[in-house]
Amino acid sequence: MRLSRSFLPTLKENPAEAQITSHRLMLRAGMIRQTAAGIYAWLPVGLRVLRNIANIVRHEQDAVGAQELLMPTMQSADLWKRSGRYDAYGPEMLRIRDRHERDMLFGPTNEEMITDLFGQAVKSYKELPQVLYQIQWKFRDEVRPRFGVMRGREFYMKDAYSFDLDHDSAVDTYRRMMLAYLRTFQRLGVRAIPMRADTGPIGGELSHEFLILAPTGESGVFFDSALEDQDWLAENVDVTSRDSLEEFFTGMTAFYAATDEMHDADAWAKVPAGRQREGRGIEVGHIFNFGRKYTESMDIAVSGPDGAPLYPEMGSYGIGVSRLVAAIIEASHDDNGIIWPASVAPFRAVIINLKNGDAQCDAICEKLYAAAPDDLLYDDRAERAGAKFADADLLGHPLQLIVGPRGAKDGKVEVKDRRTGERTEETVDAALALIAKIRA
Amino acid sequence: MRLSRSFLPTLKENPAEAQITSHRLMLRAGMIRQTAAGIYAWLPVGLRVLRNIANIVRHEQDAVGAQELLMPTMQSADLWKRSGRYDAYGPEMLRIRDRHERDMLFGPTNEEMITDLFGQAVKSYKELPQVLYQIQWKFRDEVRPRFGVMRGREFYMKDAYSFDLDHDSAVDTYRRMMLAYLRTFQRLGVRAIPMRADTGPIGGELSHEFLILAPTGESGVFFDSALEDQDWLAENVDVTSRDSLEEFFTGMTAFYAATDEMHDADAWAKVPAGRQREGRGIEVGHIFNFGRKYTESMDIAVSGPDGAPLYPEMGSYGIGVSRLVAAIIEASHDDNGIIWPASVAPFRAVIINLKNGDAQCDAICEKLYAAAPDDLLYDDRAERAGAKFADADLLGHPLQLIVGPRGAKDGKVEVKDRRTGERTEETVDAALALIAKIRA
Repeated sequence: MRLSRSFLPTLKENPAEAQITSHRLMLRAGMIRQTAAGIYAWLPVGLRVLRNIANIVRHEQDAVGAQELLMPTMQSADLWKRSGRYDAYGPEMLRIRDRHERDMLFGPTNEEMITDLFGQAVKSYKELPQVLYQIQWKFRDEVRPRFGVMRGREFYMKDAYSFDLDHDSAVDTYRRMMLAYLRTFQRLGVRAIPMRADTGPIGGELSHEFLILAPTGESGVFFDSALEDQDWLAENVDVTSRDSLEEFFTGMTAFYAATDEMHDADAWAKVPAGRQREGRGIEVGHIFNFGRKYTESMDIAVSGPDGAPLYPEMGSYGIGVSRLVAAIIEASHDDNGIIWPASVAPFRAVIINLKNGDAQCDAICEKLYAAAPDDLLYDDRAERAGAKFADADLLGHPLQLIVGPRGAKDGKVEVKDRRTGERTEETVDAALALIAKIRA
Repeated sequence: MRLSRSFLPTLKENPAEAQITSHRLMLRAGMIRQTAAGIYAWLPVGLRVLRNIANIVRHEQDAVGAQELLMPTMQSADLWKRSGRYDAYGPEMLRIRDRHERDMLFGPTNEEMITDLFGQAVKSYKELPQVLYQIQWKFRDEVRPRFGVMRGREFYMKDAYSFDLDHDSAVDTYRRMMLAYLRTFQRLGVRAIPMRADTGPIGGELSHEFLILAPTGESGVFFDSALEDQDWLAENVDVTSRDSLEEFFTGMTAFYAATDEMHDADAWAKVPAGRQREGRGIEVGHIFNFGRKYTESMDIAVSGPDGAPLYPEMGSYGIGVSRLVAAIIEASHDDNGIIWPASVAPFRAVIINLKNGDAQCDAICEKLYAAAPDDLLYDDRAERAGAKFADADLLGHPLQLIVGPRGAKDGKVEVKDRRTGERTEETVDAALALIAKIRA
């Protein structure tokens, strides 16, 4: 993308309304604009990050056999009356009446609808297990929306729902999904620590939340640093084998991890002192096993081996995709701006032309740009160098390829690594090789 | 995808509620399920088609320099009061009050919001032109939703908005977008005929709609068959040159095309008799140039070369993405089911195993399946052959790879072309080569 032709309105000043770093940086980097309280438009750079994250989430869901579908945002109140949640759900649910005076709502979650869809489609125990997911915009009418997309009202979420024949199979599914989550967060370039969670109003007996470490996190967290050092992508788990899943789960949960609410001082004392980590975390994922709560209340059964009806065991599994954009920034920035992990960065690199119109600078920049015009930002603006450097740091591209007249004479490009700040001088071919390596 | 593990609930019977072919076939093929009047969930196969279409639309928008962003579905009523449309828009607009009693609405279109976002970001004439688009779920509270996703209430739409400094530049943008539309529809495997349209309530002077030919179309259409024979993808238009755009536009609009509302008998008589085509069409796209209607009413100006404020000229450009799924089916099906154009088909091919458990059949099927497990459907169900053939025809995969014990002994696969019905016997390698060619 050529910056001179881009809709990329960066801000030099910190917007007064933003109280936390990610909100400030997302506004300043031209990623989002607020259009109503707690409601945001995603401008091109923000949308690129949102989509990169969603695609990684999608890939890891598919990898454990979950199937993607897409439910509508508008739901009929009738469904929620069947489960008994219509009255129980508070004012966060946006209730709507359509032109025929039918009660509708903008879905805050989809347990009822997916259970109903499942029940229409699946009739026999032979078709189980099934895991269905979507990545979809949801609405919760927060009384005091704040912190930008961290706690907005309209938000993008991956929600998966599983249906199993019995409890043991449901536990397998739960563990499989836990592995998918650990892999997802690792591929996103952040560490999310899984914590045993209170099951809260959704109910059920098994629940974990995943927290990204950041000083601005809403929860205090205590964990064994061994959890940060695992390589979940390299972990060799056979997700079709109950034994293999159990081994993974037992190994993983043997390490202490808890939010302040669930903290157990005795267990904590047993963690080797050198591995005790305390900090704060931002919740970005939550998984639940809640048994037959919805299948029973909505009377959704499949026929069992003997023909008798069986109520499947369910679980639900959420990842806050739009919230992750902010959470990653909270975990990865410095005073100058965002530091994107390569996998989610809006562009692999920015090409900074220090002298637009100089034949050698232009030629080198165009040659670099041609390598991946859809995935590189070319700063071809008639701006002074300082403004270009500041925007490059603010936007947080993994690499900056700086082309000035002095280096260009010798066919050289200065390459700056945003995370380390390290600068090297490279030939054009070497710079092209570096571009090719990012997200390879 | 292995069909035995898939959420793909096909129906043998025609659902009583469906009045038109596409609605019947989408329900029968397990693509959609209704969750409330005019509101649908997209099941995995339906979502795959929807996404394939969206990706082609996106690609061609990007190719003419449009930039993708994403606006929220929930809008503040204040914006619409500024343009004067809040009271003018009828009961199709779903009006909502949030928990703080603020007037909101579920966006039926986004002229107001994009004009406001543009105004916040773009301050100088030097940054023009800009074309911004999104592919987003919208809501129009149709009084009598019907025909499935053809006329649903919650629908998926690509809407683009352009901002130009003057009328000539706006006309260039309009023509560029028209070319993008012709290329988009051609890549989708359908012919959409551009028709000069009445500008209607949005106003402005230049407008075309694009209609896909199908006997169930809501409009009568008259057109010169030369329009069907053009290859817009091969057309050599320099979209950066006004002359080249004008030549394209003049050439294209020289051919007669009109809906019954705009039909001109005298002009029609001049079309060579052998090229006169009459039929019915389904509107799938609509483009408008409407000048300064919103920039003036909302007072959104940029500073011109002399510093004085200038109100940009706007256009808007819609494609009904969810409607296209149905429209393509109306245009491409037979008595047995859907016939997908390869570019949008949910899978490139289905592999039909006629004897699950037969070592040779299983081995050949697995070998074929391994070529593209994400983009092939493997019918590994314990069903009789007739049911598998019927579902394959119903779902409309471009190719069917039929593996039975007789052929398998000789390492042979029967390949059926869904569109022509032609069957050939192929070696496994030849079948793999055919799979590789689809969507290549």
